[in-house]
Amino acid sequence: MSEYPARTMSHDECWQALREHEFGRLAFHLLGDVHITPLNYAVDGQTVLFRTAQGNKLLGVVMHGPVALEIDELTDDEAWSVVVRGSARVLEGEEAYRSEALPLRPWVGDDKEVVVEIAPVEVSGRRFTLSKPWEHIVLPH
Amino acid sequence: MSEYPARTMSHDECWQALREHEFGRLAFHLLGDVHITPLNYAVDGQTVLFRTAQGNKLLGVVMHGPVALEIDELTDDEAWSVVVRGSARVLEGEEAYRSEALPLRPWVGDDKEVVVEIAPVEVSGRRFTLSKPWEHIVLPH
Repeated sequence: MSEYPARTMSHDECWQALREHEFGRLAFHLLGDVHITPLNYAVDGQTVLFRTAQGNKLLGVVMHGPVALEIDELTDDEAWSVVVRGSARVLEGEEAYRSEALPLRPWVGDDKEVVVEIAPVEVSGRRFTLSKPWEHIVLPH
Repeated sequence: MSEYPARTMSHDECWQALREHEFGRLAFHLLGDVHITPLNYAVDGQTVLFRTAQGNKLLGVVMHGPVALEIDELTDDEAWSVVVRGSARVLEGEEAYRSEALPLRPWVGDDKEVVVEIAPVEVSGRRFTLSKPWEHIVLPH
């Protein structure tokens, strides 16, 4: 195993992974605490859209600070992770129709009528070669 | 589909899920930005341990603020997510040996000699019944 098995993913690799997936986690900061919530998203151009409900706590929070969306995948010997950091804004009026052509109907509930856009400040990704030494332990006879 | 298909997981369900998994994401706050990084962890009692390297940026960060660790699983029609929110501290001296009995060798690299404990302030989990309306669309003939 290499000493530094993490490999930086290219910009294109990151966006391809984002387009190929739809389930991620959104992290945000609120009153001195850090929160993470799972959500489904869709890529629209070089932005990420998700839906939430009017009046949802999440909505107020993400509008007033930086957010980070993460997706990842883990296999037996590799993991990768892509993180989009940026700020969020509600798409108003006709802009909200940008979501109509995307697979962004809410997975949970039917009341998520607000469309939120994350405008990326930074998109980064890493691939890791994994070693799990305890899975390779040979017990003495 | 139920109007409120999310179900709160019990404390025991959350800890069981944490014990049965080992790959999560750690979110933290740094200089006005929110970050997420994947990591492997292990449960020790009612705490969560992970390893990092001396001098790693992550180490300085998580020692000075709240963190949140999230694990989740997504199947075709259900998702669940468990979040541990708390503060982190480095285990010093003999305390660090708490990790020796756990499957917490580093997956990546061999230099992650620092053991960090997250002492939970809140452990919460939710299960979601998913609907993906666009997967059920019947195209007109």
